[in-house]
Amino acid sequence: MESDNDMITNIFSDLPDNVPEELFESLAESGPVRIERIVSQGHVTADGEWYDQERDEWVVLLSGGAALLFEGDEAPQRLEPGDFVLIPAHRRHRVVWTDQQEKSIWLAVHFPGRAT
Amino acid sequence: MESDNDMITNIFSDLPDNVPEELFESLAESGPVRIERIVSQGHVTADGEWYDQERDEWVVLLSGGAALLFEGDEAPQRLEPGDFVLIPAHRRHRVVWTDQQEKSIWLAVHFPGRAT
Repeated sequence: MESDNDMITNIFSDLPDNVPEELFESLAESGPVRIERIVSQGHVTADGEWYDQERDEWVVLLSGGAALLFEGDEAPQRLEPGDFVLIPAHRRHRVVWTDQQEKSIWLAVHFPGRAT
Repeated sequence: MESDNDMITNIFSDLPDNVPEELFESLAESGPVRIERIVSQGHVTADGEWYDQERDEWVVLLSGGAALLFEGDEAPQRLEPGDFVLIPAHRRHRVVWTDQQEKSIWLAVHFPGRAT
């Protein structure tokens, strides 16, 4: 007997061959908490735009490579697989680089932070 | 200028050489939400004991290997790196095997689920 609740899925599976648009998929969601997989391949935040989010975001890069720029910082921060960062709500940031060859898989957890 | 908020850490770093006790570390926490790293090496849930948790747990295995048994299931489910599962609150389960050679690194997100 196997219950339907206990489905095991692999976070590196079901990747499209090409990623024309950055891919956002909810893996679990409840109330204000959302766990999502993001797949990027060469995608960056549009020029002049910033992410400015209502909730805290804890994000880990699981494959590929990326660089994040936080508003007010002089230089972006490079992320390699395994690197994680907590982005407080309303901490403005941009993705300035993602690997063009290898797919970058991010696991993001959005949740109400201490300040929100 | 680099702000203190934007610290990047690697989830595969700061591993002890030996893991006599299973290691639980909070990576981020706010209200009822807790993101934690668990490091196992040959650890299993004690005989006859079950995890029976108040909150939902979404967990992904990032390295190593493990097997989870859900109460009522005939056989455990094997987890390989990248495998994730949502364990609803009060869904009783046990870890029946973790790799003895390679460290198993789990990323767990505890959060109030739909049913809680």
